[in-house]
Amino acid sequence: MIKITLPDGAVREYEAGVSALDVAKSISEGLARKVLAANVNGQVWDATRPITEDSALKLLTWDDDGGKNTFWHSSAHLMAEAVEDLFPGAKFWVGPALDKGFYYDIDLGGRQITEDDLRKLEKKMNELAKQNNSYVRKAMPKAEAVQYFTEKGDEYKLDLLSNLNDGEITFYTQGKFTDLCRGPHIPTTAPIKAIKLTNIAGAYWKNDANNKMLTRIYGVTFPSQKELDEYLTLLEEAKKRDHRKLGKELSIFTMDDDVGPGLPLWLPNGTIIIEELEKLAKETELKGGYKRVVTPHIAKESMYLTSGHLPYYQDSMYPPMELEGQKYYLKAMNCPHHHKIFAAEPRSYKELPLRLAEYGTCYRYEQSGELFGLMRVRCLHMNDAHIYCTREQFANEFRAVNDMYIKYFKIFGIDKYVMRLSLHDPAKLGQKYINEPELWLETEEMVRQVLKESNIPYIEVPDEGAFYGPKIDVQIWSTIGREFTLATNQVDFAQGRRFKLEFTNKENSPETPLIIHRAPLGTHERFIGFLLEHYAGKFPAWLAPVQVKVLPISDKFLPYANSILESLKNADIRGEVDDRNEKIGKKIRDTELLRVPYMLVVGEKEMNEGKVAIRRQGKGDIGVKPIEEFITDISAEIKERRGE
Amino acid sequence: MIKITLPDGAVREYEAGVSALDVAKSISEGLARKVLAANVNGQVWDATRPITEDSALKLLTWDDDGGKNTFWHSSAHLMAEAVEDLFPGAKFWVGPALDKGFYYDIDLGGRQITEDDLRKLEKKMNELAKQNNSYVRKAMPKAEAVQYFTEKGDEYKLDLLSNLNDGEITFYTQGKFTDLCRGPHIPTTAPIKAIKLTNIAGAYWKNDANNKMLTRIYGVTFPSQKELDEYLTLLEEAKKRDHRKLGKELSIFTMDDDVGPGLPLWLPNGTIIIEELEKLAKETELKGGYKRVVTPHIAKESMYLTSGHLPYYQDSMYPPMELEGQKYYLKAMNCPHHHKIFAAEPRSYKELPLRLAEYGTCYRYEQSGELFGLMRVRCLHMNDAHIYCTREQFANEFRAVNDMYIKYFKIFGIDKYVMRLSLHDPAKLGQKYINEPELWLETEEMVRQVLKESNIPYIEVPDEGAFYGPKIDVQIWSTIGREFTLATNQVDFAQGRRFKLEFTNKENSPETPLIIHRAPLGTHERFIGFLLEHYAGKFPAWLAPVQVKVLPISDKFLPYANSILESLKNADIRGEVDDRNEKIGKKIRDTELLRVPYMLVVGEKEMNEGKVAIRRQGKGDIGVKPIEEFITDISAEIKERRGE
Repeated sequence: MIKITLPDGAVREYEAGVSALDVAKSISEGLARKVLAANVNGQVWDATRPITEDSALKLLTWDDDGGKNTFWHSSAHLMAEAVEDLFPGAKFWVGPALDKGFYYDIDLGGRQITEDDLRKLEKKMNELAKQNNSYVRKAMPKAEAVQYFTEKGDEYKLDLLSNLNDGEITFYTQGKFTDLCRGPHIPTTAPIKAIKLTNIAGAYWKNDANNKMLTRIYGVTFPSQKELDEYLTLLEEAKKRDHRKLGKELSIFTMDDDVGPGLPLWLPNGTIIIEELEKLAKETELKGGYKRVVTPHIAKESMYLTSGHLPYYQDSMYPPMELEGQKYYLKAMNCPHHHKIFAAEPRSYKELPLRLAEYGTCYRYEQSGELFGLMRVRCLHMNDAHIYCTREQFANEFRAVNDMYIKYFKIFGIDKYVMRLSLHDPAKLGQKYINEPELWLETEEMVRQVLKESNIPYIEVPDEGAFYGPKIDVQIWSTIGREFTLATNQVDFAQGRRFKLEFTNKENSPETPLIIHRAPLGTHERFIGFLLEHYAGKFPAWLAPVQVKVLPISDKFLPYANSILESLKNADIRGEVDDRNEKIGKKIRDTELLRVPYMLVVGEKEMNEGKVAIRRQGKGDIGVKPIEEFITDISAEIKERRGE
Repeated sequence: MIKITLPDGAVREYEAGVSALDVAKSISEGLARKVLAANVNGQVWDATRPITEDSALKLLTWDDDGGKNTFWHSSAHLMAEAVEDLFPGAKFWVGPALDKGFYYDIDLGGRQITEDDLRKLEKKMNELAKQNNSYVRKAMPKAEAVQYFTEKGDEYKLDLLSNLNDGEITFYTQGKFTDLCRGPHIPTTAPIKAIKLTNIAGAYWKNDANNKMLTRIYGVTFPSQKELDEYLTLLEEAKKRDHRKLGKELSIFTMDDDVGPGLPLWLPNGTIIIEELEKLAKETELKGGYKRVVTPHIAKESMYLTSGHLPYYQDSMYPPMELEGQKYYLKAMNCPHHHKIFAAEPRSYKELPLRLAEYGTCYRYEQSGELFGLMRVRCLHMNDAHIYCTREQFANEFRAVNDMYIKYFKIFGIDKYVMRLSLHDPAKLGQKYINEPELWLETEEMVRQVLKESNIPYIEVPDEGAFYGPKIDVQIWSTIGREFTLATNQVDFAQGRRFKLEFTNKENSPETPLIIHRAPLGTHERFIGFLLEHYAGKFPAWLAPVQVKVLPISDKFLPYANSILESLKNADIRGEVDDRNEKIGKKIRDTELLRVPYMLVVGEKEMNEGKVAIRRQGKGDIGVKPIEEFITDISAEIKERRGE
């Protein structure tokens, strides 16, 4: 008998050779039907693979990343089976799972594949899935595997084999398709109920332009048609809300070859959003007792040797500039500069907590291929701050940071969010984690308590903390349900010591402060990219580059329109007059496209009565009001940063 | 007879061999007494040197830089005469004039010089000056000069001679002192009426630490005791107001070895001043119709090749970072990035003038030896903007920029300022200046007209324009009368073309805009450095890092003090409570040192009546008021940015 420990700590005994699926069945048939794979002692396995020794077991379903991953990888195999059936002689390179879905790189012997082919393949995949074929794992000696693919004339799999050794080689078979594969796979094809092949692309073998171009087919599958439909709707909506498309249409940012990849230039409209966000952050941080600082964008090598960013983080930094025998680096983070400000004057416990805030601009090197609009950039305007505090102050400070997150979520209408608390592994203290067992337990428990008390949804992830302390990744979902990682929030025991930061405590002894790194609004780049999608470009009035557009029905009313513009300006409202010689219908349509929150249409009647006819973006006419009343209303809406 | 053309264009005839001094005498004896040197055809000459051909002549007096310079260089010779008299055997290296005063590097044969010696030298110089000795120029063949110094055993002058050729060698003698010297000198020693030797320092011969250490004696002289006294008072006052000293005392900025030289880190107090200045600039620019942008701090080499900064400005830029086969440079100016934003979208004349503003941070390489506190730095936060306009719009735009300067001067109590308008030289069109003769004349005349109409004090300087257009340097004087170059204001015909910037004009044809570069508040670094001296650290309330300090007479009144602090915070006033257990006298003295504009002293009486006893920085008690009244008053003072 072997002992199987479940995630809730329960231990059950089974015969050696029991599979995760067997364990699931022993609990309930319903559960067993949902099992896609299993985490056995930290590794993702086939749910059908025999377990032969005492093990920690977590059953993986569609709700787990590991479950989805396995599902999609198995779907790639299912697609390959369909390809082999429809296009005999096709040869297969690799077919991994993706964040959403999967692909397979295939040599179709020069044949071009069409959209029509994709539909045929989907049909065939549906047929094959319904056969409920099992994914069968078989280990094989290298010689035998080489012989198999040599006979088949498959140079791709032979190439993969050349990097593998005896004992590492497994084959998986479902239906008529057999593939060299490390696994794991789902038990059978039956759960694959909804299939969509989304895209065809060319991909050089091994990413090398000197090699043959293979056909890459992308797809995504779900356990139900409903989920697929939702996903396709989301895709469609996300396409409309693509921040690169909206960023161009609304003149938010631009890129330029002479400036460089990943380095957005913020146009006037984007800069207004930046400044509104900074205003919000500065107001909030001022109330929170933060002090602002301004630091240079470069520092000497010695600074980053002290911080440890060199050499460990070097690959993510721009290369150095050599000057007067010194190497200077563009800063990839603001912490070391802030630590230097902490160290600039002798500090007493009376000054703590000291909260230093800066919208610091950092530069990080991302591979050209990784760059993506505002989402993956090389220049980051970061809503950064570092809090230097005593152990006693830590819980309160951490709570205040969390409250700030929640406040921001409310302002931006972010209803779904989760904090991912990454913890240390006591077994790896002194190696992966700084060797402060008590501080780890103490701060982890404080963080946990605060999260619980604040009713913040969170999950705990063992063994993913930062080297220097527990880490909280904040994940948020846009209105259309896409997930974004916004920011991290970190506790730091290590940097204070590396930089020899000290304050004089109540006992008149030197003590190293704890440091909280926090950036609730993340970077302008990613956050504004998120907001573009989240609002579909229809920013709430307080954030909108143009808040009000005045549309005179004809030139006759231009003086009245201009007088309204003056009144708006005097009330610090960002307005414009559409003074083009165009029909009012066209003026309205064009202003809609620019997603301006309010349009004020003015003609004879409005002019004579000192009124404006108000149209709200997305809502149409909302009535006629005296201009003063409109200004009072919108001023309140802006001041309160109302969502709509 | 030769023709002498005077600066006002008048032409007079004289015998060949006439001296500038003779010409002055022919005009008036009073003028002749003031002549120190002369500008003859663009070169500064002895006023006594014979003029043998038709020449343009400007007589130089104490009011001219060339006059002062000659005066100080002659004073160095006078000091050398005194040194030779008091320390026989002294050998002399070089003795140049400085911005203020002069020095001479002397080999005293190992003798240490004392403060007492300086007083003796001053006395001797006064004696010698009163002898009214002439400075007599004598040309000499090289061989004869070498013989002279070989006999004298003067290796220093022999070294100087080794770099000179026949025809270049002149000697000057006054009284008993003769020196190898290029000149020019003042006519006689008589005008040197007030003498102060200020400092003694060691200086390696030829600045090389392997050479002998010479004694450098610094001094300054004036044509009257009154001027010397004023200068010494200014020096004393400037020392008290030294921005590096005040910057430390008031926690404005710090420098750090690990960050690098010339790269200030702005502490919370300095950052408050930065943010108030930016707020002022943003408000002013918003009213002026500017749009704000945000651009990265780096760009590819290609950008700076287009702008022409590479290779011409390369020495002032940080060295490149090499990434993916590209060179990236830290920006040394914001213009190219702004031009790219102009070019990002098609532009119509309807959008002009387009005014793009950014508090851009630039990086410039200054030699380590040139760095000086905030005044000469490597990191510059610049109050930058570029105005793209048509020729027709130019005069109005330029006027608006000038008005902005004047507005700022009023706010900061800058009473003395001058604009230095640098023009082109028509003879150098196509070489030193872009070949647009009409545009030069047109814009120079427009600039001149605007300066006249605005009643702005200005001077015109021929042949000092920028390559691409006329340039205006703005010079201001601090309260204690020290001069600072604040900013430049430039017209640019060239960059628009280099960057292929175009707008569609009314005739539907492409046209290149004119560009105005402007930065009225200069850089935060230099401007805050100036303000520290200008205000002696006693910032007006709107700029002061802490605006109000509440001083409870004893701990008993701490709750009342804290309630006042709350009221101040609610009114957006930056306040602090001095909660130390100290006597009220000490609290007041310490707060005075921090130059906080207002102190509110609170005790029994104030608490019972809901009042505060107000002390104004530098003025002492100014009465007791209800707290609400004080808040109303100071809020108005802050809002109006009152000087005091």
